[in-house]
Amino acid sequence: MINANMDTLKTIHVPAKIEAYGLIQDKLDQVERHLLAEQPGQHSLLTDSAEQLFKAGGKRIRAAICLLSAGVFGAERGSSISLAAGVEMLHTATLIHDDLLDGSALRRGKPTINAGQNAPFSVLIGDYFFARAANLVAEANNVDIMNQFARTLMTILNGEITQRFSLWQVDRQEYFERIYAKTGDLFVLAARAPATLGGASQENLMAMERFGYYVGTAFQIIDDVLDFSSQQTQLGKPVGNDLRQGLFTLPAILYAGRNQHDPDLQLLLDVQDGAHPAAADLIDSIRKSGVLDEAKGEAKDLVALGKQALGTLPYSEYIEALISVADTIVERKA
Amino acid sequence: MINANMDTLKTIHVPAKIEAYGLIQDKLDQVERHLLAEQPGQHSLLTDSAEQLFKAGGKRIRAAICLLSAGVFGAERGSSISLAAGVEMLHTATLIHDDLLDGSALRRGKPTINAGQNAPFSVLIGDYFFARAANLVAEANNVDIMNQFARTLMTILNGEITQRFSLWQVDRQEYFERIYAKTGDLFVLAARAPATLGGASQENLMAMERFGYYVGTAFQIIDDVLDFSSQQTQLGKPVGNDLRQGLFTLPAILYAGRNQHDPDLQLLLDVQDGAHPAAADLIDSIRKSGVLDEAKGEAKDLVALGKQALGTLPYSEYIEALISVADTIVERKA
Repeated sequence: MINANMDTLKTIHVPAKIEAYGLIQDKLDQVERHLLAEQPGQHSLLTDSAEQLFKAGGKRIRAAICLLSAGVFGAERGSSISLAAGVEMLHTATLIHDDLLDGSALRRGKPTINAGQNAPFSVLIGDYFFARAANLVAEANNVDIMNQFARTLMTILNGEITQRFSLWQVDRQEYFERIYAKTGDLFVLAARAPATLGGASQENLMAMERFGYYVGTAFQIIDDVLDFSSQQTQLGKPVGNDLRQGLFTLPAILYAGRNQHDPDLQLLLDVQDGAHPAAADLIDSIRKSGVLDEAKGEAKDLVALGKQALGTLPYSEYIEALISVADTIVERKA
Repeated sequence: MINANMDTLKTIHVPAKIEAYGLIQDKLDQVERHLLAEQPGQHSLLTDSAEQLFKAGGKRIRAAICLLSAGVFGAERGSSISLAAGVEMLHTATLIHDDLLDGSALRRGKPTINAGQNAPFSVLIGDYFFARAANLVAEANNVDIMNQFARTLMTILNGEITQRFSLWQVDRQEYFERIYAKTGDLFVLAARAPATLGGASQENLMAMERFGYYVGTAFQIIDDVLDFSSQQTQLGKPVGNDLRQGLFTLPAILYAGRNQHDPDLQLLLDVQDGAHPAAADLIDSIRKSGVLDEAKGEAKDLVALGKQALGTLPYSEYIEALISVADTIVERKA
């Protein structure tokens, strides 16, 4: 595949997040209204939960990618907005059950559903938001997309279960499969589904799929780096929370590959207990070893591949904005 | 609306369940295969859970109604089977989370997911089966139906939450709203969606909607009667389990309407504790009072209305089988 615009794209760097979102701000506002919209007969508990979940803010990066992709392919406005809201809703529903299963009391400094007075209803609240996500995506009125949505949800949940059986394993391939299921596939849905809506060619669908895949994977790697580099006191989680739970993410995998005989690593894999002092020591070693920058470098390379995937598409302000969103991923600090 | 066939239908009574299912047995067998089908990359925990859930048997009444409705309207075979499997899958997913929230160890004498070795995964297993239900329904390839599916799921979950806030209330209207959300709406989906697939007229869609509504409501009333009349030792649940949990179903509502000053009733509504001796005494009074037969009579009347709704449709063996299925509802003993 000849990539005429690639060189141009590679040199473009639009750091101002506002610039990227500006193009779609009115649509993002409508997405917010969909997320908060009370349904007929809806119990006040669900309305309150929606407020708690969606008024807490959030980058809405999945919705932004969805709406920008819709701009590229001229997808119908109402359907694009429903789809973007459905993608964010699905993401939020998975977080409700994640927080419940992990017993997390805070997410981004705000109380989780399972930590508040509605705790006994966390399972049902998450279920309801899954249903509402399906409802929003169905409003986009496209059977192919509905199929993509259901498949993505299956992938996420199958990945969640698989992850819980892959603790205390240092396996790079398994890691990339895991983050595809956890994050990559939903980014693929966000990037590709609006192209489906806009009647894109097979080649262009593939381009958006690759963009979603690379950018989503990079997003998760940065998340995993931040788990080591942030102080996270605000989140109520200790530094290196993933590792303490037995989850080896890219920084830990890179470190382990290079320091196979590190006694803390050996001990930890042996005792499989995140509360063991070896965990804190290993986390410290990982932070000091330079692997965080290395992992960030891998994320940057993936973002570059994502931008490159857009190279076959006709250049437009929407493409420019997608590139800007991709760039913000590796720049984020929280 | 003139109902030419009504008299004929009212006199028809086909009790043999096998006769009704015989028409669609090969399709029901395919539904079973869909329910058990392992998806690519699916974790063995999910495959095992599907076996545990679906090999335990079950009447598959929702699937049967769906396939018989498909027969009435000549809906495409593959889509009808996917739809029927999706409806059963949705039903099963709601039961997984119900049993989890209620802490039930047995359902129909078999261990629940939350009682076995996979207990810590009950939330995710239920979620996965919701996703798979959406996936199966999406395979029916119809946007309208996908919308009906998502709305039904929202109704069920909103109803579940509302129910948990309506304990210790004696309210007939609230009861009928609750059982519509819990059971009626999914029967409506099962009955009407295949008519949508088959391109039925608005009048015929409405007829199937009414059939689903009346029959589904009757089904739940019988369930609620059986909660009082069965010994249920096999289920590990005490007689009158609903009432003990604060849930006033039709028998209790009928009894309360007639015995407002029953001291056990007064006491129980006051203390709101199913473990109080007044609960057992009240359950005993309800069992002896004749309201179980009265509630069953209401269910019979609803089934008659359901059969009557079919009266505008051209008579066929599928209609006959739907009538037979409706009749089995009030005859069932467990």
